[in-house]
Amino acid sequence: MDVAKVLIDGKWRAADAEGTFHAENPAKGEALSMAFPISRWSDCDLALTAATKAASELRSIEPEKIAEFLEKYASNIEAAADAIVAAAAEETALPVAPRLKDVELPRTTNQLRQAAAAVREESWRHATLDLEKNIRSGFAPIGPVVIFGPNNFPFAFNGVSGGDFAAAIAAGNPVIAKAHPLHPNTTRLLAEQALKAVETAGLPPATVQMIYNVSNENGLKLVSDPRVGAVGFTGSRNAGLHLKRGAEEAGKPIYLEMSSINPVIFLAGALAERPEQLAQELVDSVLAGSGQFCTSPNLILAFETPQTGSFLAQIAKSFKERPAQPLLSSAGRKQLHQGVTALTTAGADLVTGGENAPGDGYRYANTLLRATAAQFLAAPHDLQREIFGNATLAVVVSTQNELQSILRLLEGNLTGTIYSAKSGVDDATYNTIAPLLLEKVGRLLNDKMPTGVAVSPAMNHGGPYPSTSHPGSTSVGIPTSITRFAKLECYDAVRPERLPAILKDKIANPKTWRSINGAWVQG
Amino acid sequence: MDVAKVLIDGKWRAADAEGTFHAENPAKGEALSMAFPISRWSDCDLALTAATKAASELRSIEPEKIAEFLEKYASNIEAAADAIVAAAAEETALPVAPRLKDVELPRTTNQLRQAAAAVREESWRHATLDLEKNIRSGFAPIGPVVIFGPNNFPFAFNGVSGGDFAAAIAAGNPVIAKAHPLHPNTTRLLAEQALKAVETAGLPPATVQMIYNVSNENGLKLVSDPRVGAVGFTGSRNAGLHLKRGAEEAGKPIYLEMSSINPVIFLAGALAERPEQLAQELVDSVLAGSGQFCTSPNLILAFETPQTGSFLAQIAKSFKERPAQPLLSSAGRKQLHQGVTALTTAGADLVTGGENAPGDGYRYANTLLRATAAQFLAAPHDLQREIFGNATLAVVVSTQNELQSILRLLEGNLTGTIYSAKSGVDDATYNTIAPLLLEKVGRLLNDKMPTGVAVSPAMNHGGPYPSTSHPGSTSVGIPTSITRFAKLECYDAVRPERLPAILKDKIANPKTWRSINGAWVQG
Repeated sequence: MDVAKVLIDGKWRAADAEGTFHAENPAKGEALSMAFPISRWSDCDLALTAATKAASELRSIEPEKIAEFLEKYASNIEAAADAIVAAAAEETALPVAPRLKDVELPRTTNQLRQAAAAVREESWRHATLDLEKNIRSGFAPIGPVVIFGPNNFPFAFNGVSGGDFAAAIAAGNPVIAKAHPLHPNTTRLLAEQALKAVETAGLPPATVQMIYNVSNENGLKLVSDPRVGAVGFTGSRNAGLHLKRGAEEAGKPIYLEMSSINPVIFLAGALAERPEQLAQELVDSVLAGSGQFCTSPNLILAFETPQTGSFLAQIAKSFKERPAQPLLSSAGRKQLHQGVTALTTAGADLVTGGENAPGDGYRYANTLLRATAAQFLAAPHDLQREIFGNATLAVVVSTQNELQSILRLLEGNLTGTIYSAKSGVDDATYNTIAPLLLEKVGRLLNDKMPTGVAVSPAMNHGGPYPSTSHPGSTSVGIPTSITRFAKLECYDAVRPERLPAILKDKIANPKTWRSINGAWVQG
Repeated sequence: MDVAKVLIDGKWRAADAEGTFHAENPAKGEALSMAFPISRWSDCDLALTAATKAASELRSIEPEKIAEFLEKYASNIEAAADAIVAAAAEETALPVAPRLKDVELPRTTNQLRQAAAAVREESWRHATLDLEKNIRSGFAPIGPVVIFGPNNFPFAFNGVSGGDFAAAIAAGNPVIAKAHPLHPNTTRLLAEQALKAVETAGLPPATVQMIYNVSNENGLKLVSDPRVGAVGFTGSRNAGLHLKRGAEEAGKPIYLEMSSINPVIFLAGALAERPEQLAQELVDSVLAGSGQFCTSPNLILAFETPQTGSFLAQIAKSFKERPAQPLLSSAGRKQLHQGVTALTTAGADLVTGGENAPGDGYRYANTLLRATAAQFLAAPHDLQREIFGNATLAVVVSTQNELQSILRLLEGNLTGTIYSAKSGVDDATYNTIAPLLLEKVGRLLNDKMPTGVAVSPAMNHGGPYPSTSHPGSTSVGIPTSITRFAKLECYDAVRPERLPAILKDKIANPKTWRSINGAWVQG
C-alpha cells in the first residue's frame, strides 16, 4: 500500500508510522483512497532536531528572504489553486465556489502577503531604543513553533498555511505543522507549495515541516519538548486543554483557540424596526459553512416583543426550507447531535431539526432550539455548551435585568453582537448591556453578524478563556498576532557593531517602525 | 494583642485571621513586636468582590485620574520616606543609605511616575484603527490583578508599590497585593500612602487592597478564582510553580519571575587586558544586596589564561576581606547553605566561605566555589542551581567548544553578560558565543555587570523559562510591562458614538499614540 510521505528537513520521506488513516469524502460518507501515516515519536524527534538547526540559521537571515518566502508561497498556492481547492472540496464537502476558491483561498494568500509586509515594516518587533542609557530591546524569534490546525478551515487556519503559520514564520521561526486528519491531502498539497517556496527563497530546508498525525501521547510529548519555542492550536476544547496542560507544565507558551458560542443580542427596538431582515441575517450566519465556524452564533438573546414570535418563526421556517449541507465528518455529526440532546436535556425546547437529515453524506437538519431566560439562568453551564454545526439556541428575555444576569454568567467568547434600533430607541439599553458583554468577548459587533473575520491589523480573533488561552492575544490581525511567537530581547551596553540591524542607531530599511526615546518613527 | 489591619475595599479593617506572624530584624535575629494576620479565605473573598466592582468602575474612569493617582502616590511615598525607609531597614537589614533611601525608593517613585506618563501617552494600548473596514482594537484592562512581591526589594517590587503594581494600575486594573511576610510593616506603610492617593484621585476605594499573608491553599484559591483577571509573582521557583499550576489550570494569565543564575562570561582577551578591574566589578556585583538580587551573577565562566588564576584569587581575597552583610532571613541563610552544599556535593570545590559568618543577625561568609568545565558538563543540572545570596560559582573553561557546550545546557535566565577585550582580540569568539547565550537570556550585556536594572522603556526584565513564565514579557520597562495585564478588545462596525475615546476617529489627547491604517501617529 502506498502511504503518503511526511515533510521533514526539506525532504518528503517515508514516515516511521505506527498506523495509517484515510480521510473521507463527507459529502458521500466514503473513505478516500490515499493512506496517510500516523507518525511515531522518531518522526517528531527528527523534525524537532531539524527545526532547532533551522531556528538558529533563521536568526541571522535577512528579513527580506522571509518576506520573499511568504509571497512566493502565496503565488505558488494561487498557481496550484485548482488542485488544492479540489482536494479540499473532496475532504471537507465545503463548496468550491464561492467558499473555497473565491473566499478562503484568497483570504489565505492575502494573509501570507500581509505577513510579508509586516516582516518588511517590522513594527511587530517593537524595537525600543533608549539612546541615553544605551539600552535597546525588541521582539525576536521564539524558536520552533508547533501548529495544530482545526478541521473547519482547510486553508486559512491550516497548520501549514494559515494565520498561526504566517505569524510564526513572520517572526522568523521554523514551523512544524500537524495536519488535521480530516484534510491530510489538502495539507500535503499546501506543504508541497511551501517547500518549493522555501527552496526558492533560500531558507533553511526545515523552515516548514509537516506530519499528518500522531498519537495523543506523542502530541503531548511534542508540545512539551525542550526544543519547542511555542505552540499554536485551533480546535476543540478537550484537545486544547489536554495540550495546554502539557505545554504549560513544561513552561512552553501555548496559544489556543478552543470554543465560543458567540452570543447575538437583539434589542427590542431593532426587532420592532426590521424583524425580517434580522431573521434573514441570522439564518445566513448560523448556516454559513454548516455552522462550523469558530464565530458561528450558538446563542441568540432576543427581547420579548410583539415581533419576537414571528422573528423566531421566520428563522425556524428558513431552517426547514434551506437544505442541510454536509458536515465535515461522521464524528462531527454525532457530536452535534449529542450537543443538541444535551441542550434539550437541560431544558431547551426543540423548535425544528434535532435529527439527521436526508441526502448523501453527513447531514444534520438545521436546528433551532428555544429556552426561556429562567431556564437559562437555572442551567447556565449546560445551556451555553458549544454546538459545532448548523444549530442554535434562542433565549427570549423579558427584562434588562434578565439579560444582565445571563451575560454575567457567560464564559469567555470570541465575539459578542448587539443589534439595536437605528432610531436610537435602544440606546439606553445598549449602554447598560454593552459593557457587560464586552467583558466576556474579544470582539464586539454592532448590527453585523460575527461570522466574518476580516484580515485586518485591527482584527481581534481572540477572547477571554476558555475561548482562547489568553485574552491579550489574537490569531488573526497582523502584526499583533506575530508577537505571540516572539521572545523579548534586550541589549544593554552592547557595542554598536554587535547590535542587530534593527537596534542600531541608524537603520537602512525606510519602512521600519521603531520607538526611539519614546516616539514612534519610521525609517 | 494588637494585630495589624488589612486594607479591603478602602478601609483598614481587622482581618479574619487564622493566625498571626511577626517579622524579624535580620540584622539582630530578633522578632519585631508588631503582629500581622494570616487571612482566612473570607478576607480574600471580600477583596475579590470589592475588586470586581472597582474593575467595572475603573473601565469608565478618565485615564487622567489614574495618572494622577500614580503621581500622587509617588509624592506621598516621598513625603513619608523617612518612616518607610526606617521600617524597611528594620525588616530587611538593607542599608538605609544609599540602598533604600537613595536608590530603591527613588527608583520606585520614578517607576510610578513613568507609569503615569504611559497612562497619558497611551501607546501601551496599541490602539489600531482600520478606517476603511471600520474595525478598531486596542488593549483594555484585564480585571483584578493579584500581585505577590518578593522578599528582596521592599519597595521596587513590592506588590503594593513595585513594577507589577504600577503596570497593573496603569492598565486600569484594581490590585490585590499580598505583602511579603518578611516586610509586612513596610508594606503596610506603603499601602497607607496608596490609599490616601486613591482617595485624593477619586478612584474606586478597592483600587488598591492589601493582605499580609494567606495559607498556601488560599494562595492557590486566590490565583484561580473566577473573579481574577491576571496574576503577577516575583519570588522563588517552588512557590512560583505552585501558583502557576493553579492559575493556568483555571485559565488565568500569570506572569512569574522565578529564578536566574545570570552567567557572566570573561573572554580571554578581557582577562589579559584588565583582570584587576574585572575582578573588582564582579565582587561588587555579587555582593550587592548580599547577593540577594534576581540578577546576581551566580555563574562565572572564565577562560583559562595566564591571568585567570590571579583573577580568581583576587575575587577570593576580596570575598574574605569584605564583611558579610546580614541576609534577609534565617530561612534564607539556611537555603543558601543548602545551595552551597549542593554545589560541592555535585563536584564544585569551595574556595572560600561556605559557612555562617560572625556578627549579629543572619550572616553567611562571602562564598566562592570553583568547578572545571568537565565537572559542569557532567552535572549541568545540579551545578546551575540558583544560590540566592552572597555566593557564586566560577567555572574555568579551556576551549570555545567547552563554553558552547555549557551554554547549550543552560536553562533560561534573566541576563547573560560577556566581557571582551577592548582591543578586538575577542571579537571572533564573541561572535560565536553571543548568539548561544542570547537564546538563553532576556538581556545581553557587554562589559557591564547585570545587577543594575534601569527603569527604561527599553529594559527587559524577563527571560526564557524558568527565569520567567513567558519569554515575551517583562516586569520592568514601561509601557511594555503594562500589556501583560491587558485584554485585547476589538470594535467591529460599532457606531461612532459608542466607541471608547481612544478608538474614535478624532482624539482629544495630543499625546496619544495610535496606529492608523498602518502608521503610528500621535494625537
